[in-house]
Amino acid sequence: MNTILCIGAGRSTRALISYLCQFNKADEFRLIIADKNLQMAQEKITLGGKAEAVALDIFEEEALDQLVGEASLVISMVPANLHHRVLESCIRQRKDFVSASYVTEELMQYQEAIEEAGILVMKECGLDPGIDHMSAMQELDAIRNKGGRVNTFETFTGGLLAPSKVENPWEYKFTWNPRNVVLAGQGVVKFLQEGRYKYIPYNKLFNRTEIIYIPQYGYFEGYANRDSLKYREVYGLQDIQTLYRGTLRRVGYCKAWNVFVQIGATDDSYQMEGVAHMSHRQFINSFLSYNPDDSVELKLAHYLNIGLDSDIMYKLKWLGLFEDALVGLEKGSPAQILEHILRKKWTLNTEEKDMVVMWHRFVYELEGKLSEYHTHMVVKGKNANETAMADTVGLPLGIVAINVLNGKIKTKGIQRPISAEVYEPVLRALKGYGITFEKSLIH
Amino acid sequence: MNTILCIGAGRSTRALISYLCQFNKADEFRLIIADKNLQMAQEKITLGGKAEAVALDIFEEEALDQLVGEASLVISMVPANLHHRVLESCIRQRKDFVSASYVTEELMQYQEAIEEAGILVMKECGLDPGIDHMSAMQELDAIRNKGGRVNTFETFTGGLLAPSKVENPWEYKFTWNPRNVVLAGQGVVKFLQEGRYKYIPYNKLFNRTEIIYIPQYGYFEGYANRDSLKYREVYGLQDIQTLYRGTLRRVGYCKAWNVFVQIGATDDSYQMEGVAHMSHRQFINSFLSYNPDDSVELKLAHYLNIGLDSDIMYKLKWLGLFEDALVGLEKGSPAQILEHILRKKWTLNTEEKDMVVMWHRFVYELEGKLSEYHTHMVVKGKNANETAMADTVGLPLGIVAINVLNGKIKTKGIQRPISAEVYEPVLRALKGYGITFEKSLIH
Repeated sequence: MNTILCIGAGRSTRALISYLCQFNKADEFRLIIADKNLQMAQEKITLGGKAEAVALDIFEEEALDQLVGEASLVISMVPANLHHRVLESCIRQRKDFVSASYVTEELMQYQEAIEEAGILVMKECGLDPGIDHMSAMQELDAIRNKGGRVNTFETFTGGLLAPSKVENPWEYKFTWNPRNVVLAGQGVVKFLQEGRYKYIPYNKLFNRTEIIYIPQYGYFEGYANRDSLKYREVYGLQDIQTLYRGTLRRVGYCKAWNVFVQIGATDDSYQMEGVAHMSHRQFINSFLSYNPDDSVELKLAHYLNIGLDSDIMYKLKWLGLFEDALVGLEKGSPAQILEHILRKKWTLNTEEKDMVVMWHRFVYELEGKLSEYHTHMVVKGKNANETAMADTVGLPLGIVAINVLNGKIKTKGIQRPISAEVYEPVLRALKGYGITFEKSLIH
Repeated sequence: MNTILCIGAGRSTRALISYLCQFNKADEFRLIIADKNLQMAQEKITLGGKAEAVALDIFEEEALDQLVGEASLVISMVPANLHHRVLESCIRQRKDFVSASYVTEELMQYQEAIEEAGILVMKECGLDPGIDHMSAMQELDAIRNKGGRVNTFETFTGGLLAPSKVENPWEYKFTWNPRNVVLAGQGVVKFLQEGRYKYIPYNKLFNRTEIIYIPQYGYFEGYANRDSLKYREVYGLQDIQTLYRGTLRRVGYCKAWNVFVQIGATDDSYQMEGVAHMSHRQFINSFLSYNPDDSVELKLAHYLNIGLDSDIMYKLKWLGLFEDALVGLEKGSPAQILEHILRKKWTLNTEEKDMVVMWHRFVYELEGKLSEYHTHMVVKGKNANETAMADTVGLPLGIVAINVLNGKIKTKGIQRPISAEVYEPVLRALKGYGITFEKSLIH
């Protein structure tokens, strides 16, 4: 009997485990959910689901190896910095490994060992990276298969708030790892436009946004991700003229977020002084000049040349940044303190719904003619627990695992979901869950 | 017979070695100048100087130890990342060590070994750090000795161009390590103002300058150094309200330099693409958006919201940044390419003179009354070879070495020149070379 072992049952695994339980209604395979916290694993198993919860500390190598030894395939849902422990056990036990995390340089050091073990290590199988790869490669392959030459590929993804009547001038709340949202874009951004390499430093990133229109959903703004160029080779786009990967937000978000970037509030490189007694207002003031006669609001507006009555200032006020409320941390870097303050307003209420948006732009040349079309995917969550983010990360991962188990995906070695063997069955299965792409022909 | 061994005879050692040769006219001690390049060592020995030039590769440990073994004291003038080799030999051979470089965390790891060897390791004996420590501590000690309490200490140093008739809108050229000038200020700046901790991110550093007036020399502008707070303990200023260390430039420099910071041209974290065929103009354009119908000048002016006919644009044009001239490097980071372009205009002509400026501001309370005074030092160079920078770095180092040799400086262990035993004889000797401080009483 085939066995899927899912290691890690944290908050972000609900959709994945629920999918696996549902798929296993007929008890076709053995499903083991392992976590250090047994209760957490038990809770994730849906009512009547044919699965076993097991307590496992991945730092106990013997126990880990024994459990991995019982599996046909392992899904690793542990924190990103611990994947290597699960991977090493998979190599020792010669078991396939699936995860949503990035292919890293660190992973490439295991390449030889992985090939010797003859196993599959399928990475980047969530939303972004994940569905973005699959939906892009399906289009890029289709263009190339009919003889087209891809000239431009742009791709944007965002985890946002679904439209609602609750006032929120940012139209945003955290729906995934808040720390990554606060640190987003640090380092230099590189991309390719009309054959020219272009570079944007962090301090200009949120100024250089692109406006994107998505039919029925309106306008969004996108800022560039750091790593556009590295997908040139992965996607086989060596001749491409414009290549741009970015993140989507609602219009107006980036200009306001830029305030944090400009004053240095997203810096994670040093610990601030006096955090235990620091108020929101003092946090902001510590980045402004010393002028006891001027208000923090005026100093900030003047420093960044924004109007006191601008939308930007309203967004900051809505977050309570000028209030005397204590931050509530004992210590922290600016980024850690900012994250803590933002969580007070940017945590989903029980009934609030998130929304995942993905948008691709393709321009290609076929028989001397340039054509352009866009595709987009919009998925809304049900509530604060059953989020679109959790669905779009967990479902592709579960579907990939099932397809590896039933032999539809046969490839071995370190892989991303970029070949038709992988993306076709996964994109087909995702449709059954309402995760679909619409196509807009431009010319 | 006492022996001074100077290891390293690069361009920046001319003033030091000339001082030592001159001091040794009566052949009172043995003076050895060692460098990998024997000719370089020979050239530095002034006419009739009683000194021996020796070829030495500090990577040959045995040869290094043998030479250090012959010395009473070693002056290390090797590149900053190689000092530890010379230091380790001094520890093995139990010889005193003097250098102009910073006390680093890495150095502190040798503390126990240094104490066991019973040697002196005197660091930060150049200009900045060096003369700044000595001249500041002399004043701070004087204030405290008469019962005063120091409330504010600000200190600025700059290596500039002496006023001349040659047109240079920056009033600046490189007079010390150009790479450090290009990278200056990266990371966060921390300082203390009126008892409050203040933080400035790199992208705002050159916007938040202070205007400083120096009698007879006019106005300068200062931007903050990274490390103001670490001198609170070194100087014994635990109760101080305002503590600020900075760098001096001529008025208008910082606003123009800020262009490079804002577009990302000082980034040293990645290698640019296509450097071998890149022109100055293309270098600037790679940081600007793609708009083939607009000029690079207009795109830049618009991006940074500066006038096309502003002083800032004039400074950039004067540097040749918009010209089609090739950069002339095979590869490089933005910072390396920028440095290479700047060197074309910012290298001293033979007859040009540099100028070193140091300025301190002291505010103290004595018997309930607040008093303020400033001190400043201005030193002009003779020509492009005999620079004020080389003098003010080399002379204090040489004077410290002589005073250690003749027993006036007796202290042991890791030291900075902050005790009266050290700064009194050095500041007295510097006066003989025209390196003096003027005092201005404010109130």
